[in-house]
Amino acid sequence: MPSASYEPLTPLSFLERTAKVMPNEIAVIEKDKSWTWADFFNRVNRLSNGLKGLGISNGDHVAIISRNFSPMLEAHYGIPMTGAAIVAINYRLSADEVSTIVNLSEAKVLLVDMGVADRIDKEKLPNVEHYILINNGVISYQEAPKANIEGMDYETLLEHASDEYKRLHLDDENTPIAIDYTSGTTGMPKGCIYSHRSVYLHVLANVIEHKVDAYSVNLWTLPMFHCNGWCWTWTTTATGATNVCMPTPDAKEISTLIQQHNVTHMAGAPIVFHRLSRYMNENSISSFPNKLIIDVAAAPPPKGMLLDMEKRGGVIHHAYGLTETYGPFTICEWQPAWDSLSEVERINLKMRQGVPDITAGYVRVVNENDEDVPADGETVGEIIMRGNDVIQGYYKSPEETAKAFKNGWFYSGDGGVMHPGGYIEVKDRFKDVIITGGENVISVEVENILYEHPAVYEAVCYGKPDEEWGELVKALVHLKPGHEVTERELIVFCKSRLSNYKCPKEIDFGEIPRTSAGKVQKYKLRQQS
Amino acid sequence: MPSASYEPLTPLSFLERTAKVMPNEIAVIEKDKSWTWADFFNRVNRLSNGLKGLGISNGDHVAIISRNFSPMLEAHYGIPMTGAAIVAINYRLSADEVSTIVNLSEAKVLLVDMGVADRIDKEKLPNVEHYILINNGVISYQEAPKANIEGMDYETLLEHASDEYKRLHLDDENTPIAIDYTSGTTGMPKGCIYSHRSVYLHVLANVIEHKVDAYSVNLWTLPMFHCNGWCWTWTTTATGATNVCMPTPDAKEISTLIQQHNVTHMAGAPIVFHRLSRYMNENSISSFPNKLIIDVAAAPPPKGMLLDMEKRGGVIHHAYGLTETYGPFTICEWQPAWDSLSEVERINLKMRQGVPDITAGYVRVVNENDEDVPADGETVGEIIMRGNDVIQGYYKSPEETAKAFKNGWFYSGDGGVMHPGGYIEVKDRFKDVIITGGENVISVEVENILYEHPAVYEAVCYGKPDEEWGELVKALVHLKPGHEVTERELIVFCKSRLSNYKCPKEIDFGEIPRTSAGKVQKYKLRQQS
Repeated sequence: MPSASYEPLTPLSFLERTAKVMPNEIAVIEKDKSWTWADFFNRVNRLSNGLKGLGISNGDHVAIISRNFSPMLEAHYGIPMTGAAIVAINYRLSADEVSTIVNLSEAKVLLVDMGVADRIDKEKLPNVEHYILINNGVISYQEAPKANIEGMDYETLLEHASDEYKRLHLDDENTPIAIDYTSGTTGMPKGCIYSHRSVYLHVLANVIEHKVDAYSVNLWTLPMFHCNGWCWTWTTTATGATNVCMPTPDAKEISTLIQQHNVTHMAGAPIVFHRLSRYMNENSISSFPNKLIIDVAAAPPPKGMLLDMEKRGGVIHHAYGLTETYGPFTICEWQPAWDSLSEVERINLKMRQGVPDITAGYVRVVNENDEDVPADGETVGEIIMRGNDVIQGYYKSPEETAKAFKNGWFYSGDGGVMHPGGYIEVKDRFKDVIITGGENVISVEVENILYEHPAVYEAVCYGKPDEEWGELVKALVHLKPGHEVTERELIVFCKSRLSNYKCPKEIDFGEIPRTSAGKVQKYKLRQQS
Repeated sequence: MPSASYEPLTPLSFLERTAKVMPNEIAVIEKDKSWTWADFFNRVNRLSNGLKGLGISNGDHVAIISRNFSPMLEAHYGIPMTGAAIVAINYRLSADEVSTIVNLSEAKVLLVDMGVADRIDKEKLPNVEHYILINNGVISYQEAPKANIEGMDYETLLEHASDEYKRLHLDDENTPIAIDYTSGTTGMPKGCIYSHRSVYLHVLANVIEHKVDAYSVNLWTLPMFHCNGWCWTWTTTATGATNVCMPTPDAKEISTLIQQHNVTHMAGAPIVFHRLSRYMNENSISSFPNKLIIDVAAAPPPKGMLLDMEKRGGVIHHAYGLTETYGPFTICEWQPAWDSLSEVERINLKMRQGVPDITAGYVRVVNENDEDVPADGETVGEIIMRGNDVIQGYYKSPEETAKAFKNGWFYSGDGGVMHPGGYIEVKDRFKDVIITGGENVISVEVENILYEHPAVYEAVCYGKPDEEWGELVKALVHLKPGHEVTERELIVFCKSRLSNYKCPKEIDFGEIPRTSAGKVQKYKLRQQS
């Protein structure tokens, strides 16, 4: 095959193209600053050349811990452009957890947003050769915590580096571009290996499924460290869409930025939009200024949130995936014929996590003998996937890789059903199925009932170990401000709507503990109970 | 790498997905018939299994000669699903030309639309083992010509075959999916080898650049044999868009079908839409029922057509490519900032053929020493390309392949300029540059002036061999009905607008000869002159 006919797939090609094609369109907005694609490309080239000057090259790893700021976006290009892989770390983890990840990843250079520098304990990071400190324009968002690290200032690194673009030569498009550590609910963090090829394909799927183009404005409600922002860190670049950065997804700031920048896209866990909905209600903000596409995943969205967002001009794109699938793998692919259904029918369909997106691959729901469960929308099995949107394995963890990858499929550990028509619906993490008196209770089913009560703001159900029942159904409920309801009243409410055995036997009241990705930390609740 | 993490790229995966995800949406409309994606998938599986029954398998070639009917679309899946490559042949060629292509391609099976069966001369096709005759619902469009072939009826083949889907197992995504013979302007036809991988990527680019989704309705104004309809034969399937078939692009029928089916997309050479514009004017049809995206390539579009289509609600997407680049390679990528320019400025920008589309690769304009010409919008050089959207070479033609592929680039043979900002503009096929008295005249420049005259319907310029001048500028002009203008008057008109040496010295009046792809056959004019 002539060499003219084959180019390795890499999302870096999107930046080169967009920087050339529309250099003067706005790439990034952050508070009162903005950068064009030409500016952004210039800064990325400087970052890449600066890192090369520090000895970074093919096969190296460079870690970054940062909130959603422009340097975090730049790092998604500047680091891979050297041939290294980016390790974007959750800044909400403890210093110990961060140390574990940095050490497992063997990163030689660590970039640190000084606003979260207290997560870095230099003493525990023997392999880090250089620290790069992101100070500029960042600290103003919050007071910088005390930190025990020293290093070169990020802006100074860029200033002293060349802005010459050197296209990365990839021998193999399956080369790692990122290593993403799962924000572990249990056990040691596992490093998911993302490839240039698969990110490229995932980006094209994002563009197509979410209708991203040069006019799009994406508000960063999703943490960029989380599956590299479900690959949106590379998606906006593909079409020259604008990124609006915000450090953390505060409901008031989301609402303000949507109005200010005519935001067209945002992504995140349901809880982010649930809170946005509450904020808008409380402040009598009725609607979004544009049609606003909301890419929701990470947890099944409450119906109320879906309805509320759509009422305001939002269009929920409901997706599902894991860190092992570059973020979302399936999407509730909307069918034109569904437009004419009733609101109830439409919302019920939208609650499904759907089908593999256009480039993802294949999904099945299987029983313990690896047989497909009947497509009846009722029989729960394990969701398994294969395709280009599945990682190559865990970094230097052959045993963990072997456990999750069997017979040519990746085993998600998530429980779901297959509906007639081939759409999946996630029922629960398997470990979150409550087995009480020999009966399986799907906690989301109980939670949905609790959400129907007018006083309930958030609710989770989990299994509390119990001598008699094995587990008993327990709930933690967070009430709306100014509302009151007793444990007894809520249990009666459930009993009027659910089989007795599914109803909570005990209910606590209080805040719901969540991971930074918005997933409820049920293991914490179980431990406490 | 675990086998769960890699799937060879193939457009066949789009059909499997769409048939499963939206089986009840409409896939194909043809006259008063329509097929859902479930129907279409069923028919494709039957075709594939029927061909396997005839001995077709991996590495074989199956040819088809057909107008734009449903079986032609089905063949784009049914043939590759056996592991064979499809050879879609231009039905406007002579029987001798068709024989040459069928023999060069080594096709074992030939599918024939009986409406164009007079292009088939059985005596000259010693290698064809089976003929499959497409009769059903087709002949009604026109009287079937006499044919000397016998074979199995297409519908009978399908009826007797199993509808079981067997996913193609590809060892290598670079496996050929199609061989497209260039509708040669000179010399022997060359067979462009299309791969599964590159078609997949080209399809995703089509979806993104032309905003195709499940609501889209594509009218087949472009012949499906022409670069497999610029890969639109596989594009509509990717998102579950509807195909509206029409045998040939008749202006009246186009206009009727657009209104009848709320068409959102169509593609083709400028002449098709130029004629549509005339038809709509003559019949006082002011606008399209929807926003209608028109993918125009194959020749530089006249400004008047661009303006007229946009006035009616059309949005011209101006693209450029060759059979060697799966159809369009570049596109005039529209920049949001251009929206605020004046109409004249916008149309001038839209006349450019643009930049490589999102998955195509790289383009340059080089001089005879392979150096980039200055990006001044004036210096003409040869357009060269590289990337996944470039063919792997010509089938069994190592010499032709070596001629066109050099130093890692494909040499298009087309002349163009590079504008500041990186957009290319095609000036002419190199062989169509007129060299008169030592000066180069770009024929499209002269043609554009002729088009400004109110009496001119179509115009082409070419070089007529001349002892004194080397070549002299000659034009062929097709006048609008009811209009009159003399040769003298037109030459004076040109002289008032162009340098003397560029103006035609001779003008003939009459119909413009074109290839079936809409390209003007200037070599015929030169031969006649």
